[in-house]
Amino acid sequence: MSEHRNDAPKDFIELKNRLAEIHDLRRAQEVLFWDQTVMMPPGGGPVRGAQLTTLDRVAHERFIDPAIGRLLDGLGSYEESLDYDSDDASLIRTTRRDWEKARRVPADLAAEMVGAAADAHDVWAKAREENDYPTFLPHLERALDLKRRYIDCFEGYAEPYDVLLDDYEPGMKTEEVRVVFEELKAALVPLIAEVASTDADDGFMKGPFAIDAQHALSLRVIEEFGFDPQFFRLDLTVHPFAASSGTQDIRLTTRYTENDLTSIFTAMHECGHGLYEHGVSQTLERTPLCCGVSSALHESQSRLWENIVGRSRPFWNHFYPQVQAAFPDTLGDIEQEAFYRAINRVKPTYIRVDADEATYNLHVILRFELEQELIDGTIALKDLPEAWNSRFEQYLGVPIPSDTVGVLQDVHWSGGSFGYFPTYSLGNIVSVQIWEKAQTALPDLAAQFEAGEFGDLHGWLRTNLYALGRKFTPQETLDRVVGGPIDAKPYVRYLREKLGALAAV
Amino acid sequence: MSEHRNDAPKDFIELKNRLAEIHDLRRAQEVLFWDQTVMMPPGGGPVRGAQLTTLDRVAHERFIDPAIGRLLDGLGSYEESLDYDSDDASLIRTTRRDWEKARRVPADLAAEMVGAAADAHDVWAKAREENDYPTFLPHLERALDLKRRYIDCFEGYAEPYDVLLDDYEPGMKTEEVRVVFEELKAALVPLIAEVASTDADDGFMKGPFAIDAQHALSLRVIEEFGFDPQFFRLDLTVHPFAASSGTQDIRLTTRYTENDLTSIFTAMHECGHGLYEHGVSQTLERTPLCCGVSSALHESQSRLWENIVGRSRPFWNHFYPQVQAAFPDTLGDIEQEAFYRAINRVKPTYIRVDADEATYNLHVILRFELEQELIDGTIALKDLPEAWNSRFEQYLGVPIPSDTVGVLQDVHWSGGSFGYFPTYSLGNIVSVQIWEKAQTALPDLAAQFEAGEFGDLHGWLRTNLYALGRKFTPQETLDRVVGGPIDAKPYVRYLREKLGALAAV
Repeated sequence: MSEHRNDAPKDFIELKNRLAEIHDLRRAQEVLFWDQTVMMPPGGGPVRGAQLTTLDRVAHERFIDPAIGRLLDGLGSYEESLDYDSDDASLIRTTRRDWEKARRVPADLAAEMVGAAADAHDVWAKAREENDYPTFLPHLERALDLKRRYIDCFEGYAEPYDVLLDDYEPGMKTEEVRVVFEELKAALVPLIAEVASTDADDGFMKGPFAIDAQHALSLRVIEEFGFDPQFFRLDLTVHPFAASSGTQDIRLTTRYTENDLTSIFTAMHECGHGLYEHGVSQTLERTPLCCGVSSALHESQSRLWENIVGRSRPFWNHFYPQVQAAFPDTLGDIEQEAFYRAINRVKPTYIRVDADEATYNLHVILRFELEQELIDGTIALKDLPEAWNSRFEQYLGVPIPSDTVGVLQDVHWSGGSFGYFPTYSLGNIVSVQIWEKAQTALPDLAAQFEAGEFGDLHGWLRTNLYALGRKFTPQETLDRVVGGPIDAKPYVRYLREKLGALAAV
Repeated sequence: MSEHRNDAPKDFIELKNRLAEIHDLRRAQEVLFWDQTVMMPPGGGPVRGAQLTTLDRVAHERFIDPAIGRLLDGLGSYEESLDYDSDDASLIRTTRRDWEKARRVPADLAAEMVGAAADAHDVWAKAREENDYPTFLPHLERALDLKRRYIDCFEGYAEPYDVLLDDYEPGMKTEEVRVVFEELKAALVPLIAEVASTDADDGFMKGPFAIDAQHALSLRVIEEFGFDPQFFRLDLTVHPFAASSGTQDIRLTTRYTENDLTSIFTAMHECGHGLYEHGVSQTLERTPLCCGVSSALHESQSRLWENIVGRSRPFWNHFYPQVQAAFPDTLGDIEQEAFYRAINRVKPTYIRVDADEATYNLHVILRFELEQELIDGTIALKDLPEAWNSRFEQYLGVPIPSDTVGVLQDVHWSGGSFGYFPTYSLGNIVSVQIWEKAQTALPDLAAQFEAGEFGDLHGWLRTNLYALGRKFTPQETLDRVVGGPIDAKPYVRYLREKLGALAAV
């Protein structure tokens, strides 16, 4: 559990105790959400919704309590006496920022957003299934309206989208994202046109792959990446995610289908999120600093383990024989090189979550652009499917046959999560910045991966990133890890080299 | 979800909303406890302990808030305008009683009791394993001391034990328990001496019984008793229990060992608890009335399904062929009558939870007597093992070879649960009172059980008992179901008839 300086003032102890209780309520919410998704009998839904709303409201109320503000006000001189890098100084600094932000949002608006998301979810799911955008439209209108009211709670921003982005990537500005995304898009569109292949014979990737063997392999890769089974579980869900009850209790979820091997990469992806949460310094346990620092930094770790490690030649030199042995009928006669090419195939598709490493980013950039245009009114919601379809074809060269695989494919907007999408690609970009740094520190990584050794990389990431938790801003954190701000060049370079090499042969 | 009268005053709505939130927090606690026991990775323990303590404290704080008292004070005339049996009147009446009681306990004492129980649990578990009472003694002293301080928070009781009993069996007095237990003991001691058998050849009850088949049979019996899988789960724990997140989400737990068939009866027992919680009227959902009314009434339902239904001839006429088919190697050659006798064998043993239907009560009466003598100081804690052993031999005719199977066997005292034990036997007594009433209303039950039909009994219990939840006191509830107060005679009669018939042949 977390500790504080022995001479910490009484007010600091009180602040910390209050924050610990709020954190407990937030984690209880996370466990109840995990339970709802993974374990709950179907009948439990309505009451569970109420329990989650209550935990959210109680935690929010306790946090925006003016007493927290008074405690923070009184701790200025203690904060100044502390090292900027200390846990205590970070706690005061970060809490002040969180509190100033949270108290601007009226409890009623916060509750209405939670309620609207709950109402919209099933409508969206049905509309997606039935390719019925008009039914979903009123809920989307409400979600967007609520977001506009949410934006109105704040002031001093350069553009409204900054407010939304800040919820997932604190301190990041829309203009910065625009710059790196323009650079990325300019590089990707021609690169994808050059390396995309639609005629490959990857029939063996359709299986069958026995579910039991997929589960065993998923657990094996997670443990090889360094996760001790004392500290995590792996269960089944429709939409995989990672959740945390504490640094020593991480819940990973995944899904299996007999006719593909996506589950191995899903396991790596959620493992990356989980290792980040697991690696936060235990001195930060039960504080609001005890989690990953932002969505993009989090995604950088899921993508680093999934793509940079998990789709690399050295990894498969080590792991392919195990996978081949697990599915002898399907992969027994398939050369490792054919498998490696299949899992790195660039091929435009409709669905973001099925997209390859390269085209994935164009899916994200599309949503980032549309979200801004929805917020500023350039596009009306009724015209959204048309805007989606025409721009998708422009970026990826593929016409959209139905809204089910177009504008309705993702859950985010039904839940009011505008501003989230860009962090997926920011995560990709950051993942390579961090990877380059790790490689410089550990020049032997490729050989280690070939030997099935991932401990040095895990240890380096833990020390340099995971342990920090939320002590610093995302920008400070990235600067500490890589020595500079976000930069698309390493990622573009990485994709060009990897995909160019594959296309050249 | 619960509803209230359309003309309910604003204060009533506010009271109800506050109570709903507190109930949500309590249920979240229950789900987190279930998760801790059934699902949590081992590393999660310390943080989970803190989360549970926080949820407990926040719920307690919100409940003892003077605002709740003010709301209750202002609702007197609304209450008077209501039918005594209405949900709203019951909510006000019951909440007033709960609030008057809860506010007497200082938050510090409540927290110390939670902490002491957490500290003592592992010490007790180790002491039991190592037959080491002296190590556990200081924790027991602390638990008893806290209980004395807890008793001091109250006044106006006839004897101190009343206060403890009231936590599990509200309104029940020690003297009433003494009277029914004396009657029960006086009947049981000679009956057990008469029917006990120690030389039966029940070797087939030692298995092997394949775990998978035990699990399938457990699920089958639970579903036959009327539990729709939409509304429950069955998982594994060391100590079986039933928990509830809401009436439509019940969590049953059990355990399996290859060398006995106890799991079938454990499933019936926890199913009985679960059906009670599941059957509470949905108009009471998310109110403090949404649960079984007391420990004894709850136990009456677990024992009714486990013993009265589940150890009856009609049930086994229906179910034995299925059990036999599930374990052909072990039970293929065993006559149903031999199996029926084996599961109803009366045979004194050391361990309460392994005890048969009859001797079980003497285990409970022993603890009830010792608890009172500990509270009033007649027995010193250091002399407790000796007192336990001599009285056990007196009641059950068996000398105790070690504290592991004697005074250290149960978890309750480590958790400070003094006053709980008597409710086990009160439950047995009540179970037969209710059963006689159900039989009068449904004279065809035996034939129905033989046909594998349990719906009429389930429906009758649901209408007459389960649906009421906690709307009335336990005494009022029992009176509504059976038309009178607790009475040991039906139970004694039931045991005499059943066990006498078995011994006579």
